[in-house]
Amino acid sequence: MMTLKDINALCRKVKCASRDLAIADKAVKDRALAAMARALISNASYMIRENRKDVALARRKGLSRAMIDRLTLTGPRIADMAKSLSQIAGLKDPVGKVTEAIKRPNGLIIKKVRVPIGVILIIYESRPNVTSDCIGLCLKSSNALILRGGSEALRSNSAIFGVLNRVAVRYGLPADCMAMIKDTDRRIVDGLLVQEGLIDLVIPRGGESLIREVTKKSRIPVIKHYKGICHTYVDSSADLKMAEEICMNAKVQKPGVCNAMETMLVHRKVAGKFLPAVIRRLRLAGVEIRGCDTTRRIAAGVKKASEKDWHTEYLDLILSVKVVGGIDEAIAHIMKYGSYHSDAIITGDRKAAEKFLREVDSACVYVNASTRFTDGGMFGKGAEMGISTDKIHARGPMGLEELTSYKYVILGSGQIRK
Amino acid sequence: MMTLKDINALCRKVKCASRDLAIADKAVKDRALAAMARALISNASYMIRENRKDVALARRKGLSRAMIDRLTLTGPRIADMAKSLSQIAGLKDPVGKVTEAIKRPNGLIIKKVRVPIGVILIIYESRPNVTSDCIGLCLKSSNALILRGGSEALRSNSAIFGVLNRVAVRYGLPADCMAMIKDTDRRIVDGLLVQEGLIDLVIPRGGESLIREVTKKSRIPVIKHYKGICHTYVDSSADLKMAEEICMNAKVQKPGVCNAMETMLVHRKVAGKFLPAVIRRLRLAGVEIRGCDTTRRIAAGVKKASEKDWHTEYLDLILSVKVVGGIDEAIAHIMKYGSYHSDAIITGDRKAAEKFLREVDSACVYVNASTRFTDGGMFGKGAEMGISTDKIHARGPMGLEELTSYKYVILGSGQIRK
Repeated sequence: MMTLKDINALCRKVKCASRDLAIADKAVKDRALAAMARALISNASYMIRENRKDVALARRKGLSRAMIDRLTLTGPRIADMAKSLSQIAGLKDPVGKVTEAIKRPNGLIIKKVRVPIGVILIIYESRPNVTSDCIGLCLKSSNALILRGGSEALRSNSAIFGVLNRVAVRYGLPADCMAMIKDTDRRIVDGLLVQEGLIDLVIPRGGESLIREVTKKSRIPVIKHYKGICHTYVDSSADLKMAEEICMNAKVQKPGVCNAMETMLVHRKVAGKFLPAVIRRLRLAGVEIRGCDTTRRIAAGVKKASEKDWHTEYLDLILSVKVVGGIDEAIAHIMKYGSYHSDAIITGDRKAAEKFLREVDSACVYVNASTRFTDGGMFGKGAEMGISTDKIHARGPMGLEELTSYKYVILGSGQIRK
Repeated sequence: MMTLKDINALCRKVKCASRDLAIADKAVKDRALAAMARALISNASYMIRENRKDVALARRKGLSRAMIDRLTLTGPRIADMAKSLSQIAGLKDPVGKVTEAIKRPNGLIIKKVRVPIGVILIIYESRPNVTSDCIGLCLKSSNALILRGGSEALRSNSAIFGVLNRVAVRYGLPADCMAMIKDTDRRIVDGLLVQEGLIDLVIPRGGESLIREVTKKSRIPVIKHYKGICHTYVDSSADLKMAEEICMNAKVQKPGVCNAMETMLVHRKVAGKFLPAVIRRLRLAGVEIRGCDTTRRIAAGVKKASEKDWHTEYLDLILSVKVVGGIDEAIAHIMKYGSYHSDAIITGDRKAAEKFLREVDSACVYVNASTRFTDGGMFGKGAEMGISTDKIHARGPMGLEELTSYKYVILGSGQIRK
């Protein structure tokens, strides 16, 4: 097993490389990323071979079908990974961007300039595409990175990392600007989480218990990506046809993701008209409905929602439905049971929209659109490191800009403080 | 002693109040802040009376003169606190500011809007003015706050808090939007640091050991304010008269603060000309010089700097001096021994300036100016919560904007995801 000394030595090397990467040329980074995209394609069969060993082991261990599906690499999936790297290569470099510039009365010019964060530790589970996405986003934003993937994907991740790392070095990026921890002992993570001063940020991607444990143990700042219990509130003034289309989309278009709707709230004035039709359509799409008492009086055969249902991120074709007395009750429900990820109001009333946008304290608040848009790509960020449910540093879809810090550059001509 | 249950109940009340404060009117906040400023003046004699009890106890305990000075409240100091609150009242409200707005091809309008962080816990030591500064900055940015001051200033802090809290409530701010922990048991802090979900951010202001302990124990994000080992590098192309004025200012104008210079680096080509004059002036101002061997050959009677000196934040009239072979050695020294707070180059060479600004990874990097300008007021931020030495969320002087998070507001007209 890696000792704490080994871990510290590795982190030192990566930190050192991060300084060179921080001042690397945009053109060098982009050429490397483009070559890395090509290398994924030309090494696809090798990576698929390695992946098959992981998949075979996962089958022997009896992992669920969903888990095995997430783990499996195929030609089209590798093509998607390559496409993502190419897209990242084409994005604007966030490093060096001046976001503010002021001139003080004494003549000092003060600029706020984006700089990389430094060294980012990413702790993640099964999906091997996370390996290449994180490498792409971190290198583009001049951050060195340490990857710690799940043991079930070790061979796949190592293969992807090996291919990309060789190309990065060949194209002139610092040799140690990316590292992968291949020792699967869980205590290694504990050793990494105390390397403050060498690692600047920890991003855990995975289940809630993983994130909680990392947060508890880390002395390094952590950006958390918790669950999405997303609500859509259909107001009394809503265009009910629009509401129906949006609710259908938010629930069934891809139910297994964090921006899918889990709870639908409906104003009581329109519940009698809206609910029967939308519940029929949802059921046709295979959705199980769990409702409050009023919902159950309006629509036949609806199972009673328990207190636990309002708290649950189903990630499945299940929807809880509640009829509310008005917008205040809707907002109170969202603030009590939600996870402050993405919540929407469907309304024709400008005042109601403004109230909802102001009072619902979620990363993304929508008027008349599906919560499914909470996504780096959909927000025009090209790609994302995840959807932060934190309020510190990054909130919502985390793209290249959110992978930067800033420095103040102060230009003087001999100014001293009086 | 407060139990964990008491702590949790208190945090719940403050969290609840934070929701009302988040949507409080700018005018209500500003009127309250202005009235709080007036109340400090009209209650000055009461606060000074309470402060005298703290000071008397501190004397009996044998606290250092510097500590007692920091603890002492006087009429002029209270007037300064009041002035700071008035200034904060006059600053622009950061909440609600739209910092980005884009329209996507599908017609969605996505705005990034500043929102308060929520509930901020401030853990601080002796200086009672921190109490009113933090209350002012947090309320202005619509953040609820929990204050935990040092036990040596308990009576002073309680008096200031009591006066300001009464005014806040009278002027319509939520009753529990500010709280002060008056139980001085150290274990209370441990109980506060596990209230994730109720407290959103912890700001420890004080010595390094306090900050380290808080960071180690906290499950809540912490923004650290570590020391400032600030450097000034005098390049071979520097205007030596300007360099002398800047170095004098950076060292002696206020040596006990984090943005004062602790180490002066001098290019060997100009060391022979620059050092004798500047060292003479520094000594006249009472500064003790600790130098490298070259410095000691150039100037008589200089004590040898040890390895420890390069790592030390003196906060005193002591300066370490090193002669370097060039800008690369200067940068390497800063990156090895510095604290990434504030570092300056004095140069007439544009290329050298650019290299220094790019390669020195400090919160504030200066060309031809004194590092003493690293300060919220000097940066035009009006006031500050401290100087962050972190790279996550806030870096350098932390003002009102750095006390905000953001949300995405998405305006649609029925958009669904394909």
